[in-house]
Amino acid sequence: MALIVQKYGGTSVGSLDLIRKVAQRVIKTKTEGHEVVVVLSAMAGETDRLLGMARQMAKDPEPREVDVLISTGEQVSVALFCLAVNGMGHEARSLLGFQARILTDTIYGKARIQDIDVTRIREQLGRGRIVAVAGFQGLDERGNITTLGRGGSDTTAVALAATLKADACEIFTDVSGVFTTDPNVCQEARKLEKLTYEEMLEMASLGAKVLDIRSVEFGMKYGVPIWVRHSQTDEPGTLICEETNDMEDMIIRGVVYSRKEARITITRVPDRPGIAVAILSPISSANIVVDMIIQNTSAGGEGFTDFSFTVPKDDFEKSMLLVRDVAQRIGGEKVLGDDAIAKVSLVGVGMRNHAGVASRMFGLLAAEGINIRMISTSEIKISCVIDEKYTELAVRTLHSGFGLDRE
Amino acid sequence: MALIVQKYGGTSVGSLDLIRKVAQRVIKTKTEGHEVVVVLSAMAGETDRLLGMARQMAKDPEPREVDVLISTGEQVSVALFCLAVNGMGHEARSLLGFQARILTDTIYGKARIQDIDVTRIREQLGRGRIVAVAGFQGLDERGNITTLGRGGSDTTAVALAATLKADACEIFTDVSGVFTTDPNVCQEARKLEKLTYEEMLEMASLGAKVLDIRSVEFGMKYGVPIWVRHSQTDEPGTLICEETNDMEDMIIRGVVYSRKEARITITRVPDRPGIAVAILSPISSANIVVDMIIQNTSAGGEGFTDFSFTVPKDDFEKSMLLVRDVAQRIGGEKVLGDDAIAKVSLVGVGMRNHAGVASRMFGLLAAEGINIRMISTSEIKISCVIDEKYTELAVRTLHSGFGLDRE
Repeated sequence: MALIVQKYGGTSVGSLDLIRKVAQRVIKTKTEGHEVVVVLSAMAGETDRLLGMARQMAKDPEPREVDVLISTGEQVSVALFCLAVNGMGHEARSLLGFQARILTDTIYGKARIQDIDVTRIREQLGRGRIVAVAGFQGLDERGNITTLGRGGSDTTAVALAATLKADACEIFTDVSGVFTTDPNVCQEARKLEKLTYEEMLEMASLGAKVLDIRSVEFGMKYGVPIWVRHSQTDEPGTLICEETNDMEDMIIRGVVYSRKEARITITRVPDRPGIAVAILSPISSANIVVDMIIQNTSAGGEGFTDFSFTVPKDDFEKSMLLVRDVAQRIGGEKVLGDDAIAKVSLVGVGMRNHAGVASRMFGLLAAEGINIRMISTSEIKISCVIDEKYTELAVRTLHSGFGLDRE
Repeated sequence: MALIVQKYGGTSVGSLDLIRKVAQRVIKTKTEGHEVVVVLSAMAGETDRLLGMARQMAKDPEPREVDVLISTGEQVSVALFCLAVNGMGHEARSLLGFQARILTDTIYGKARIQDIDVTRIREQLGRGRIVAVAGFQGLDERGNITTLGRGGSDTTAVALAATLKADACEIFTDVSGVFTTDPNVCQEARKLEKLTYEEMLEMASLGAKVLDIRSVEFGMKYGVPIWVRHSQTDEPGTLICEETNDMEDMIIRGVVYSRKEARITITRVPDRPGIAVAILSPISSANIVVDMIIQNTSAGGEGFTDFSFTVPKDDFEKSMLLVRDVAQRIGGEKVLGDDAIAKVSLVGVGMRNHAGVASRMFGLLAAEGINIRMISTSEIKISCVIDEKYTELAVRTLHSGFGLDRE
């Protein structure tokens, strides 16, 4: 008998029929002899519907009450799920954030889990019941409802699995696992059997949408094996775990891309200490997250530098205004902006032991006539900023160039 | 400065626009210098929508999970209300059943309030905030969500007013007060300025839908003055309170009617001790509530009796089956059923001091050719069962016959 935490996302519980199917699936796991804790998201579209109402009530909706509002989405899901299970002759019991004692800090809308008291969950499991915990929500120390932000139900599931010392945490979704790249862009994309937490973290950060980053961090910190599985099939899916010897011997685990950033460059900035801070502090003060930063010698001559960085596309206009202002003060020549860019990245722990991955990547892109605008690297990833129009071509080129289309 | 509890029903918060209007109204009361606790129902239609989903999930939905499901309705209302108030530059804070510490028993769907710990409400009021409490919901001692049944938000409001020792409890709804009779049936219906708890209890029990009976009981027990007011006007509404000398000197306060019952008669039953128990115990065992009961000498001869009683129309078919079975066993002649009946009632504490109300009532009905099928009386009411088709005629006749159309 194993203790299994299963999480079902919004598309997996998007209708009453689908909730019934989830109920059947969970009952199957239960009758195979396992203890099951289920974490559910809101039905697909429900959180957005509720947020839409909030925005109609106030231009800048008060975060505490937004959390009270949107946490009803998961509450509806767990109640309907338990009604279905009970209607099928099995016993299920729902627990909301405050009942499952999921304690968080008080950052409404982006709360972080601090502690879970699983006494009540264990008690219900002990009575032979399926326990359905509302994902995405928690309670702060003063008894206020909080929510964990987009993808928060993944975090609820992994945190519960960690605290319960569960044998497995299964994230059921509408894809059958983690792929070597986006199958919508590259037909040769292959499902991975296993990858490491670090690889999943990089892939999620760089654009793969399959898992919330914080849930992977949680899994890594507490050593929870995470399975990503399709909710409508019996395929085993992909296992995210610590690095093991039996992992497929691949230098590169995946190719990911993101079209969510824009690039800003100030040309011919006087190259003196403190220039980076001068440029970036107004940006960070405006709560805009800078991703890549590059500073190199300007074509305009010695003593000057060109300074480039990327920001989320949504913050592009605002950032341009701020940077133009800075450029005037510090004496840059021009401010150039480009929001038609994409970031294409290679991820894999195998890079650590293999030289020449970067040069091979640049060579593959060059051979297709794709110019590289910016580069950033870490121990297990290389990212290149390119013109947006080349995104799909670059992904396919790198995918086959690094042999990811072959078993 | 007074402490006022205001309750707004489902039709008063039936749309985002209406919630905004409620927010304005509450802010007005607040800025006039009062402390305000607001109790909100679910948006009109929401509870039924959620119940519909529950019934699609299971034939006989598990009551605990139904409560988890439908309590989201009030949660959405209080959150949207607070978002609106905060958006208008004032401070409001929502509290759900578990946060307002509304402790109930564990009868899901029909829970009764046992205790309220108002510490947190007082603390929020002390900070100058408007407090919005989700109506209809509570928490049992083990931390399960419970709901109070239809009309439960009225009870939440009056119970809060009692515990907080509020100066007034205002029930805002879509009618402007309690009327001498249903204005849809009788154009001459007049709004009452005041009536007693006992009168309101009788009127609510006998068919007036304006207030939940339990809320009136609560008000009577703890002496909470209850105002029934229209949410869209500034009219003072109707005050429900203890009997006072300045109450309008009326023998009859109102005429109420109900079409929700059906009558069952067994003719020529042997008239011996225990016959009533023999007939009614299968009915009560089936959880069917019997209202009026009449037993009189049968036209069929001495030693026999005709036995009649009323049951809710919804339980009519089931009751007929049960009674036919009993009739065979105890030797009744025929079982007659009639579900085309109505109950018309007069209510008023003035009856206590005025003889002849009953005979005047019977005379008025007889003059219109309306046959009386059954009669039941209490200290402050008289009810007659008549053929359903005469309902409106009877109501109008009694209303003018007792001078209720005159100031």
